[in-house]
Amino acid sequence: MDLHLTLDRAAGRLAGQLAEGLRDAVRDGRLTPGVRLPPTRDLAADLGVSRGVVVTAYEQLVAEGFIVSRQGDGTRVATCPAAGPAAGPRGEAHRRALRLAAGTDAGPADPPGIAYDLRPGKPDLASFPRDRWAANLREVLRELPHTALNYPDPAGVPELRAELAGHLARVRAAAPEPGGIVVTAGVAQMLATVPRILIEEGHRVLAVEDPLGHHQIPMLGATGIELAGVPVDEEGIDVAALARTPARAVLVTPAHQYPTGVVLSPRRRSALIEWARDVDALIIEDDYDGEFRYDRDPVGCLRGLAPDRVLLAGSVSKALSPALRLGWAVAPPWLAVRLRAARALHDLGSSVLDQHVLARMIGSGEYARHLRVMRRRYRARRDAFVAALRERLPQVRVHGVSAGLHAYAELPGTCDETAVVAQAAALGVAVEGVAPMRVGRPGPPAIVVGYARLSERRLAEAVDLLAAAVRAV
Amino acid sequence: MDLHLTLDRAAGRLAGQLAEGLRDAVRDGRLTPGVRLPPTRDLAADLGVSRGVVVTAYEQLVAEGFIVSRQGDGTRVATCPAAGPAAGPRGEAHRRALRLAAGTDAGPADPPGIAYDLRPGKPDLASFPRDRWAANLREVLRELPHTALNYPDPAGVPELRAELAGHLARVRAAAPEPGGIVVTAGVAQMLATVPRILIEEGHRVLAVEDPLGHHQIPMLGATGIELAGVPVDEEGIDVAALARTPARAVLVTPAHQYPTGVVLSPRRRSALIEWARDVDALIIEDDYDGEFRYDRDPVGCLRGLAPDRVLLAGSVSKALSPALRLGWAVAPPWLAVRLRAARALHDLGSSVLDQHVLARMIGSGEYARHLRVMRRRYRARRDAFVAALRERLPQVRVHGVSAGLHAYAELPGTCDETAVVAQAAALGVAVEGVAPMRVGRPGPPAIVVGYARLSERRLAEAVDLLAAAVRAV
Repeated sequence: MDLHLTLDRAAGRLAGQLAEGLRDAVRDGRLTPGVRLPPTRDLAADLGVSRGVVVTAYEQLVAEGFIVSRQGDGTRVATCPAAGPAAGPRGEAHRRALRLAAGTDAGPADPPGIAYDLRPGKPDLASFPRDRWAANLREVLRELPHTALNYPDPAGVPELRAELAGHLARVRAAAPEPGGIVVTAGVAQMLATVPRILIEEGHRVLAVEDPLGHHQIPMLGATGIELAGVPVDEEGIDVAALARTPARAVLVTPAHQYPTGVVLSPRRRSALIEWARDVDALIIEDDYDGEFRYDRDPVGCLRGLAPDRVLLAGSVSKALSPALRLGWAVAPPWLAVRLRAARALHDLGSSVLDQHVLARMIGSGEYARHLRVMRRRYRARRDAFVAALRERLPQVRVHGVSAGLHAYAELPGTCDETAVVAQAAALGVAVEGVAPMRVGRPGPPAIVVGYARLSERRLAEAVDLLAAAVRAV
Repeated sequence: MDLHLTLDRAAGRLAGQLAEGLRDAVRDGRLTPGVRLPPTRDLAADLGVSRGVVVTAYEQLVAEGFIVSRQGDGTRVATCPAAGPAAGPRGEAHRRALRLAAGTDAGPADPPGIAYDLRPGKPDLASFPRDRWAANLREVLRELPHTALNYPDPAGVPELRAELAGHLARVRAAAPEPGGIVVTAGVAQMLATVPRILIEEGHRVLAVEDPLGHHQIPMLGATGIELAGVPVDEEGIDVAALARTPARAVLVTPAHQYPTGVVLSPRRRSALIEWARDVDALIIEDDYDGEFRYDRDPVGCLRGLAPDRVLLAGSVSKALSPALRLGWAVAPPWLAVRLRAARALHDLGSSVLDQHVLARMIGSGEYARHLRVMRRRYRARRDAFVAALRERLPQVRVHGVSAGLHAYAELPGTCDETAVVAQAAALGVAVEGVAPMRVGRPGPPAIVVGYARLSERRLAEAVDLLAAAVRAV
């Protein structure tokens, strides 16, 4: 296959040039839908560029929906790439945009034909405390001085930052320092911002757990940083492998690794912090599911152990609702200042009314009470779900159910994961395969199953259908 | 003055390198507070780089608070640059961050010692419809399906986009197309996003009106685009001068130029659109103050005349409150798709509850009614303010009061604008000088005065003090 790709080295931005060349090839029909692209290593050798250039270009095109990458199946041109007529002034050059957004959603609300939505990453939306939110907003609007309705502090309103400091110290031992808390529009915004700051600081590579949340891959890739996948085993991220990468920054989910559900072991925690001190590195701790713990001892956050090395990021997306787009970062002072500046230069901060409502709910104890209620509810669902899996799918190994809102279900080694996901969908059950969550390294087939949003009865029905899907495959 | 600046051309990012070199010089004491930096043209010649590189580096350092740029006074090292001990793991290299945010705020709420805050750009915060906002939120939370509490469409909830389409067609003849509306976190987010998209499309330069809102200068500069200032005369932006720049995109405020208050003349409107068609350009129309018009004929937006060429951006910041961080862009389809993708890759969208409340208020007519009430209130304030100015400061020429929330007051040619601003502040009246709003070109001294937030009586008192300040200078 000769793709006729030419790169202008003097012009820089090689990955961007390569992506553009591949887009052109798709548009011209030199690359047809379904055709397999060369492995990154081979294409890099052909073009005389580093493999990272090709990986970055491929990631960008995956984000845009031009190509599809599947474990065991290589990278292929998408079957409906950049469809639709160009409507803009720049015609051809913009067709690619027409599919860009579709590939980067956090997930549609309700896929058609799906009766049991077990996709992970979303809480029980029916439990959102609607009355309390409305009542607190009424109080906020009764009490707030007019000046609070001006442009906000881009780092967040002081009331919320103070309440978050108390809350995160109490429940997560997060060592929040005054001035170290920045309100964010959610963990996503933090993921889109911190790599850009790292690049300004001379970083080129960010290490990530492999596998990781597949929505995070295009989001991190769009910042221009190169991702180095580091394997995760039963103790969590492999710190020795991390040390062999050129990365001096790492994104981890120690409380409940996403998607495997592993808790970072005490030994690994120490090793990770030691690595950070040795090589002057930053640890980005996504406190994913940190609030929901069922039958294991509490595990503090990494940040509490090394506040000078760790940025802790969290949000209300699992505790309340992802529709609020509200979160926080607890950062070393230098980074908190940079995060605030990034918001000052980007969006001037989060909705002030939502911030004040959350501050009131934390301050009054309502937020902690809501978490306790949800923990009990989720635990009951987890118990029902795991019992049903053990009974109906004994051949599946279930991991990571001592905390969080999802289970990592390892399929028998011979089982085709993609076929199971497709078969389950055909039966009305939405789950996710782990393959799109891998950065590079292959691994055993598995599905990721969120149990948070269905009642115990409906979970048992869904597991029946899942078992039928596995049998059919 | 030998600054010992060395640039590594092979490493790229020359403006970033230059900014870093200058920061180091400030930290090392080679550049001391108050010292004047070389003009951009001279430093560019010394270093053998384009002038744009130096301009970009200076803009970045202004945004960070390291240097201060004043018309007629050149560019000087700030008197308290990057103060405070370094607290982060990278020590010295991060000190600069400690002042970064302070320089880029949209403005503090209440400066100490100021009894009369006449700074422009903010509405009357006391008029925010608190009860109606709370009541609408209660209704929203009563009616919203659970699925609406999931991750939102990053382009905005459909209900709000539909209501905005109707509203902008009715009041602004904005030619909104289905799919062309993207909800933003305010005009600021649009300003931070569109230049990045333009750069991806091969643009290097963005033309801006000179003068323009001075908070916009660092925000646009941080995107990496080069700014080309284009003069504004009594008909608005000088399109012939625009055509002489290399820019193929321009940011304009046709409804009420900020800060001069000029309305773009019909002749210039045609010329601007003709330019855009001739050179395949994009017009970014910041619909600043478009809603508040007092005693002039309605002027439609540019977008209505050339929907394929114009992005119209607006927000609720003047109509309701800047604390909501909620706005919109009406864009040609190719650009709407890119803006949606940018949100999908950056923050996943705006707070859903705020979006639904605004949609209800537009749909019920409350939003339009609120605008009518505010228009009457602001008109009365404008009348009182202009009458007081004519009586107490006849030597000042007042411009741009037929619309908007501020007046542009041209001082007598011999008057030192900076001294007037300082003297007014000493007397308890905050106003802004126009010099920090200029991109390059000098111009007559003027102050920019917002009259929206004070009662008629207090406006008269403030004008008394302003007159005393002018006399003292």
